[in-house]
Amino acid sequence: MERHFDEELKHLKQKLLQMGDLSQEMIGLAIKALTDRNDAYSKEVLHLEDRVNHIEIEIEEESLRLLSIRQPVARDLRLLTAVLKINSNLERVADQACNIAETSFYLLKEPPLKPLIDIPHMATLAQRMIKNSLDAFVNQDAVLAKHVCLEDDDVDRLNDQIFRELLTYMMEDPKSITRAVDLILVARNLERIADHATNISEDVIFIVEGKNVKHHFNDEADEQRSRAKAN
Amino acid sequence: MERHFDEELKHLKQKLLQMGDLSQEMIGLAIKALTDRNDAYSKEVLHLEDRVNHIEIEIEEESLRLLSIRQPVARDLRLLTAVLKINSNLERVADQACNIAETSFYLLKEPPLKPLIDIPHMATLAQRMIKNSLDAFVNQDAVLAKHVCLEDDDVDRLNDQIFRELLTYMMEDPKSITRAVDLILVARNLERIADHATNISEDVIFIVEGKNVKHHFNDEADEQRSRAKAN
Repeated sequence: MERHFDEELKHLKQKLLQMGDLSQEMIGLAIKALTDRNDAYSKEVLHLEDRVNHIEIEIEEESLRLLSIRQPVARDLRLLTAVLKINSNLERVADQACNIAETSFYLLKEPPLKPLIDIPHMATLAQRMIKNSLDAFVNQDAVLAKHVCLEDDDVDRLNDQIFRELLTYMMEDPKSITRAVDLILVARNLERIADHATNISEDVIFIVEGKNVKHHFNDEADEQRSRAKAN
Repeated sequence: MERHFDEELKHLKQKLLQMGDLSQEMIGLAIKALTDRNDAYSKEVLHLEDRVNHIEIEIEEESLRLLSIRQPVARDLRLLTAVLKINSNLERVADQACNIAETSFYLLKEPPLKPLIDIPHMATLAQRMIKNSLDAFVNQDAVLAKHVCLEDDDVDRLNDQIFRELLTYMMEDPKSITRAVDLILVARNLERIADHATNISEDVIFIVEGKNVKHHFNDEADEQRSRAKAN
């Protein structure tokens, strides 16, 4: 039975990876809609959301079935609980990509406010964080998971920078306000995506190290950085 | 053992209610900071977050322990999984309240942009949705849970209305932009809180009716409203 359970868990992990790939694709397409000024990509994002939602329900039902019939304990139980939480985080990532796609419909009706540089950069970071958090889960790699948590600070800094820059546009020209606010919201969506990758990574650290780092990790990370600077 | 499990589950539900009360209090205080223009309330919000985080970890660890030693099946298993998800949603509600509190520190450094009416109204709606979603969980009341899902549309409409109104302020006076954007973000935080109440309610409907309404409920709700209008 144990080996059967491993097979079933492997199957669930593959589904999570598939959902992760789809979410990353959705983020990429939503941003491509903005940079290439083509809303066909945004429509594709909304189309892909159906698939993500479908996989989410499959994973949830399969996890509950396994919890019920296999009655796993200890590490296996933590793994399965993590699958449920990662599943929920990935669905929210897809949601955020849809928010960006929906904002793009408004933005593409108006002339471009400015060439987009930081937002695509922030999207690339967020995509990589999602990818790395899932790789960390599949390979039970706490080091990679901690790396993802540190990258979250870079995303937060970019978000602040984008916010400040767009404020100056609005101050200079009231006609830019609607577009600038929309871009601020896009950056906020990307920041949330990075938060979800961080949530996933915290779960991985919990599984691998058996301790709950949530709400504590930042202190530890700050400490690491202070020491790095001191050396 | 079964009755012991019931006791343990009851204890977890009480902790969730406690966390729900704290989150509602945090929302109320964060908004009070804005309306009364007193950042002491915001500091209190950040202070309460520590307690929420502490309870969150307790609930998570206790749920995992129960999953492991009681090995519940069927409805009990769904209940315990729901506890884990509700726990995570409530922690995010508290996070959003902290975001509002942090924004308030900026807003209170500047003169008020306008009397706040819609935002406190939206906060009251969001608080009630959280309360009702938890009551629906504790009493296994799918009717109340569906009511919460419908109220989410009211919150979304208020959010749109606030966004539009604040845009007009920004258009008229560039000096109002920073404050208007901050208020848009506060409204967005409240909208997210309502989303979390909706997530919780969807889980309640899943437990009570044994079917997954996520990503389907809105269709059903739209249908209900169409029928209500037709009658």
